[in-house]
Amino acid sequence: MHRVTVALPALEYPILIGAGLLPDLGQELRAIGLTGRLAVVQDAAVADRYGSAVLTSLGEAGYRAVSITVPSGEESKSLDQLGRLYDAFAGAGLDRGSAVVSMGGGVVGDLAGFAAATYTRGIPFVQVPTTLLAQVDASVGGKTGIDLPAGKNLVGAFHQPRLVLIDLDTLSTLPERDYRAGLAEVIKYGIIADPELFGFLEQNRDAVLRHDSDVVEHLVVRSCQIKAEVVVEDEREAGRRAILNYGHTIGHAVEATAGYGVYLHGEAVAIGMAAAGRLSSRAGWLSEEDRARIERLIASYGLPVRLREPLEPEALVAAMRLDKKSRGGELRFVLARGIGQVEMTPVDEGLAREALAAGQPELT
Amino acid sequence: MHRVTVALPALEYPILIGAGLLPDLGQELRAIGLTGRLAVVQDAAVADRYGSAVLTSLGEAGYRAVSITVPSGEESKSLDQLGRLYDAFAGAGLDRGSAVVSMGGGVVGDLAGFAAATYTRGIPFVQVPTTLLAQVDASVGGKTGIDLPAGKNLVGAFHQPRLVLIDLDTLSTLPERDYRAGLAEVIKYGIIADPELFGFLEQNRDAVLRHDSDVVEHLVVRSCQIKAEVVVEDEREAGRRAILNYGHTIGHAVEATAGYGVYLHGEAVAIGMAAAGRLSSRAGWLSEEDRARIERLIASYGLPVRLREPLEPEALVAAMRLDKKSRGGELRFVLARGIGQVEMTPVDEGLAREALAAGQPELT
Repeated sequence: MHRVTVALPALEYPILIGAGLLPDLGQELRAIGLTGRLAVVQDAAVADRYGSAVLTSLGEAGYRAVSITVPSGEESKSLDQLGRLYDAFAGAGLDRGSAVVSMGGGVVGDLAGFAAATYTRGIPFVQVPTTLLAQVDASVGGKTGIDLPAGKNLVGAFHQPRLVLIDLDTLSTLPERDYRAGLAEVIKYGIIADPELFGFLEQNRDAVLRHDSDVVEHLVVRSCQIKAEVVVEDEREAGRRAILNYGHTIGHAVEATAGYGVYLHGEAVAIGMAAAGRLSSRAGWLSEEDRARIERLIASYGLPVRLREPLEPEALVAAMRLDKKSRGGELRFVLARGIGQVEMTPVDEGLAREALAAGQPELT
Repeated sequence: MHRVTVALPALEYPILIGAGLLPDLGQELRAIGLTGRLAVVQDAAVADRYGSAVLTSLGEAGYRAVSITVPSGEESKSLDQLGRLYDAFAGAGLDRGSAVVSMGGGVVGDLAGFAAATYTRGIPFVQVPTTLLAQVDASVGGKTGIDLPAGKNLVGAFHQPRLVLIDLDTLSTLPERDYRAGLAEVIKYGIIADPELFGFLEQNRDAVLRHDSDVVEHLVVRSCQIKAEVVVEDEREAGRRAILNYGHTIGHAVEATAGYGVYLHGEAVAIGMAAAGRLSSRAGWLSEEDRARIERLIASYGLPVRLREPLEPEALVAAMRLDKKSRGGELRFVLARGIGQVEMTPVDEGLAREALAAGQPELT
């Protein structure tokens, strides 16, 4: 088992990474000192597979736990589902001494985390991510929230988990498309902070795609280390943390414009990372060689580097203006100066439109 | 104009108190450095009276402001109204550089404050309280939130305002019943922290009740000073801040059990303060003389010290268990040792039931 520590000034918490960790969940909650009642918020598909093992582990550790199931899919990051959780928490008698455990992908983690952040003005919560995307990204760092009809993640709170428990065995039941989408965020860490990780992904493509367990473990551990390091430096995204959004300004706009569910989050981010690479190159920041290397790596993992169907440029630009990084309508992007080095910068709208146009499907 | 400073470690903000301050709102927002778009969230009744003056002041100071009206009454502290605000914020293009101004009583302040705390994970907000209750209590200290069907304030966040602007002239249009309900919280400050204020309220009853402007100003300033001092000592209610809940455990239970709107919040708190006095006396903490003095002062301001209609004791106890101070089902109350000195303590359920029974309407 690997242990990555997120050493924030106000709260230090562990990320535990290994195979077969789920049955230890109860003990690990005792180890961090949780004593009250628990609400276990589970993605519906995950609950079917792992729910009983987890509830058994909690029961053996002496916890009283109520289980709440959330439908799979981005639509669950809604005010409606949030209200359902609040009512279930109150109905189960949760108070300030209680805690929330979320089990599933990024959707359930974000939703349950936001409910935990705001129920009685905040109770502890624990993340048990079961998708690669959630393991390498969503579960670490304390961003929680829901979507609005107007855009993704427009409502939320910073609320750090008290523990992240990553059981790599849960990846064995993850659909291949979701696994590859999760790899998009791993590629992102290479681009924003770690040329070595980028090179590892180039050299070990086959092992990664056949789910070699040592290789996967390395990717998850390294991703969590990078994320933890960036988050500790800038918890509230006043500055450096914004680099984690590489590929996300365009990615979010693609998801919102195409309609949630058309692209997986990681697929939209892959398109966004390729577009941000083109934008970086057009802005004179990134060499043509590195731009091509980024695009090649993304494509080699079966991830899209362009839209599959054309999207209306005006709608994409409007969605980007709603991005939380934008200020007074000005577009802001994280652009690359090289592999492993990125910065946030305002971007001229004309340049952004050109990069988007190049990301439309190729005419055949 | 009086200026009370809330000197929190992370953020210091001013409470401005005086007559005729509303037209200065725009300038004061400039003075604290807000530059982006504004959403002005107003209680419907307040919007009719003061809305245009406020929007004019903001316009003159160069702000682009969108006005959003919320129906008067506790029912507006709901997930539905919260969703309405979120959609309106997104519709008006609010981003992280924007801010929320709330104008009205505690309901709109709590609701708009929570929306500001969570929209794009938090944008600045400014309180312009127009009821006595909001001026002396709700607008200061950063507690924001909404109600659930299961109980009041069960969902929320700590989010400090950047400025509280109190125009005492707005009290001239406040219904007398609301004015007196606001005085309940002023009496509370005397009980929990300031024997001098308590004595002042005993000696100046007539001047207070005829709205003598110097006397009212003194009450508001002193109340804000006490609240600011307590909040600075313990922003997140880890300890001392709980004393502000004197009378509130029972008060909230009365409101929830009778149905919101039957008692004004201040009236329910008045009943709760009298009951907490009886409980303090039964627990051997408070002299009979001081218990009677508390009850006399509350009654002398035309506030209730008992329920008007009987309420089911079981329902009251169940509501008290949902109180955010309760832990693992144990009841906790703030009790008085004397005028100006209170402490939080676990309370035996039998004792609580006796004090509640004595607060039922007297048989005639």
